[in-house]
Amino acid sequence: MKQLDELEEMIELSKRRGFFWPSFSIYGGSAGFNDYAPLGSILKNRIYEEWKRAFTVIGGIEIDSPNITPERVLKASGHVDKFIDMAVACSKCKTRYKLENIISAPGSSRIPETLKEADEMVRKGHFKCEKCGNELTNPYEFHLMFQTQASDETFYLRPETAQGIFVNFKLLLNYNRGKMPMVVYQQGKGFRNEISPRQGIIRQKEFNMAEAEVFLPESGDDNFIPDSNEKLILHDMNGVDHNISISEAVKNHVVGSNNHGFFMQLIYNFVTRIGVDKKRLRFRQHRKDELAHYSKECWDLEVNLNGSWLEIVGIADRGTYDLSRHIRESGENLYYEGEKIARVIEPAAGMDRIIAALLVSNMKRRENTYSYMSFPPEISPYRVAVLPLQKKDGLLEKARELFEALREIEPYTVFDESGAIGRRYARQDEIGTPYCITVDYETLERDIVTIRERNTTKQIKNVRIESILNFPLFLKNPILKEFQN
Amino acid sequence: MKQLDELEEMIELSKRRGFFWPSFSIYGGSAGFNDYAPLGSILKNRIYEEWKRAFTVIGGIEIDSPNITPERVLKASGHVDKFIDMAVACSKCKTRYKLENIISAPGSSRIPETLKEADEMVRKGHFKCEKCGNELTNPYEFHLMFQTQASDETFYLRPETAQGIFVNFKLLLNYNRGKMPMVVYQQGKGFRNEISPRQGIIRQKEFNMAEAEVFLPESGDDNFIPDSNEKLILHDMNGVDHNISISEAVKNHVVGSNNHGFFMQLIYNFVTRIGVDKKRLRFRQHRKDELAHYSKECWDLEVNLNGSWLEIVGIADRGTYDLSRHIRESGENLYYEGEKIARVIEPAAGMDRIIAALLVSNMKRRENTYSYMSFPPEISPYRVAVLPLQKKDGLLEKARELFEALREIEPYTVFDESGAIGRRYARQDEIGTPYCITVDYETLERDIVTIRERNTTKQIKNVRIESILNFPLFLKNPILKEFQN
Repeated sequence: MKQLDELEEMIELSKRRGFFWPSFSIYGGSAGFNDYAPLGSILKNRIYEEWKRAFTVIGGIEIDSPNITPERVLKASGHVDKFIDMAVACSKCKTRYKLENIISAPGSSRIPETLKEADEMVRKGHFKCEKCGNELTNPYEFHLMFQTQASDETFYLRPETAQGIFVNFKLLLNYNRGKMPMVVYQQGKGFRNEISPRQGIIRQKEFNMAEAEVFLPESGDDNFIPDSNEKLILHDMNGVDHNISISEAVKNHVVGSNNHGFFMQLIYNFVTRIGVDKKRLRFRQHRKDELAHYSKECWDLEVNLNGSWLEIVGIADRGTYDLSRHIRESGENLYYEGEKIARVIEPAAGMDRIIAALLVSNMKRRENTYSYMSFPPEISPYRVAVLPLQKKDGLLEKARELFEALREIEPYTVFDESGAIGRRYARQDEIGTPYCITVDYETLERDIVTIRERNTTKQIKNVRIESILNFPLFLKNPILKEFQN
Repeated sequence: MKQLDELEEMIELSKRRGFFWPSFSIYGGSAGFNDYAPLGSILKNRIYEEWKRAFTVIGGIEIDSPNITPERVLKASGHVDKFIDMAVACSKCKTRYKLENIISAPGSSRIPETLKEADEMVRKGHFKCEKCGNELTNPYEFHLMFQTQASDETFYLRPETAQGIFVNFKLLLNYNRGKMPMVVYQQGKGFRNEISPRQGIIRQKEFNMAEAEVFLPESGDDNFIPDSNEKLILHDMNGVDHNISISEAVKNHVVGSNNHGFFMQLIYNFVTRIGVDKKRLRFRQHRKDELAHYSKECWDLEVNLNGSWLEIVGIADRGTYDLSRHIRESGENLYYEGEKIARVIEPAAGMDRIIAALLVSNMKRRENTYSYMSFPPEISPYRVAVLPLQKKDGLLEKARELFEALREIEPYTVFDESGAIGRRYARQDEIGTPYCITVDYETLERDIVTIRERNTTKQIKNVRIESILNFPLFLKNPILKEFQN
């Protein structure tokens, strides 16, 4: 049997346990589309909540704009003209490949700018089809946006949520009582007509995004200042690795500004707090030839999966590009304080990839026994399970009573009365529930329960029921002495 | 000046205060699309949380499937062939109208089934264009789904989230360990190419939905039993109003089953708990000629706005229609317990309309003074505001300290130090913040604050800071004696 790599293992596990599964499978499926299954839906919601919290506490405001976007908006943003990829097809079996992925493999890593240049590269490269081994020829361009029509007008499905923020700059600034800097975030779907979707939720045609546009004054770089001393790996555009803190990186001009550095730090903190393994992370700076059409400087937070690096969040300096374009194309006043144009730093997260990284980071296995998911308690889909030791002598009823009380506070609470207690612990381990509360005879007598912790499998005895109902505190530290009798 | 009706007033207020605004306005806008502005985004999130809670506590599970849907899925569901509307255009100015809206006005209220029938009706009706007064002629059919292409395949944007649940029935039942009944819910966008979008978030091309598919065993009607004695208005298919409880309605065969009645009750409880005015609500049963192609019996929860009734949630009995179709078209096993086909009750909510109903229900005005929004505390976008009485003598710092502590518990907390205290209360009233916490000299001395309640404008003195940090309890009842010193 073929050994699964860690990504394949994660995809298998996700299907089996209900994190996500390929969409429309009864009709043979459709590459590039996935469903969040019940566990994954809760997990995704919790991560979005943390994302929102991270931006709300620095004064950010939210907006939710449509997926369907009129052509003139995306014409102004440059997407209609520039959001185009080059592809190459097999001369025999017609399998299509993104040119970027083919040429980045051996030799050259520069991305061609014209079709002519691409053609030369492909001729020289003698690239072979992965499926049938024949030669790849004749590169061509294709548009990454999905098009649709309504009332004789052309629309696209948004390739990013960002434009919904830029076109509303004036209304948002007014809402923000004119205050700058202004942080606006948006979560939602993005759509890209990927030519070779694959790897479960890693490369999809419809995906979950979370973006923030940080509008900064024209001058000064003291709006947001990174202040952590934690050392990270920063892989710069020349391929040099720096193992320094972000504050130092700004001082040493590895990162362009304090503002940029602050949001790199915020993103790093968010991603590690929800449970992505620090040892798998690095920041990588975009080379000049790979920068998006709107971007001046960009750092990707990358995660190491299967020994290769995968982008999960991009933190780009979009400068005044978008607002300038919309001012020109719409003729509207998108200035602040008279005629000033705000500068923009944009953290843009691929939520599905963050979830993939989170799942891989937390797949753990005990010696000679079943596996568990080591999610942080706040992020775990179900945070607590209530298990009666037996079904008789009133234990079932007592346990259900506690369950109902807990569910008022935390709706995602499990009740499980079926099977041996060890089997029930194992079931919760598999879905990552951090705490199992066992209701036994002592509960009937003294209103105390036993808590079993997932990662250590340790049992905490004599915990008062009353104290568990102080849920937020309990979730953070169930072994606090004050909980115990 | 023209007097605004309550719907117009709500739309104006929403733009001004930041609940929602028309999308893409700098480019002249696009009818049928709206953005949730910052306050509306928080409000919508809170309402979705309550929706999820309502279904989670009865054992429901969630799924999140794509917007983009392959043609064969919607062919099987009947949408490709039947999700078609008839329209009629002005013979002169070409303004288009949905036929249903035109003919429902005077005389006939029956919806024609064929184009020929429609043509006769329009000829007889002599309907006039609202814009130019010329005659409406030549009815035609148009498809309500948005179409798009990817890799030479046809896709549609989903017109409902339901199909994403049906096609995954087998995986979901497996996740649910084979247990029936099974409740699966989904929230997300729906898309319909409305010919005459209007009235802000009431009639849109892209809208927010929340649906649940309740899969029931083939036989028996005791899975879910309504048990409330509250009397409601049930307007049946014959136009008769019944002022009875839903339990009675089931007994009297006004509502077809206990299962159907239970979910009507659940929806009614949800909608009223979040703050829609009970006096504005009724259930209305669909007439045979208006039932959707998949529906056997349907009750709409309607809200009275501007003196007319508007559907906000439909609770349909879809029977075995969808699963039977997908079994036939896919050839897959979507049975339970061998060869049984589950029956389905579906509550389907138009979230934007619920929000419109909520806003209208809560627009309140005090005598001779400004207005306020009377949202329930749990639903209010910002739940609490911290206001230092003065900026001097350390009050600002003390207030900010409390604010930071509260924000750890509830990120949507306001800090406002600018302007007279009365003006600051008024600002919070306008956005519906239920409690303002004033930090004054007593706070410095004794760690107590004054709470000002929004609806009554009453001041609750001597509240201990420590007790406010027990936030969930505080939110439910800030006037509890135990909070006070």
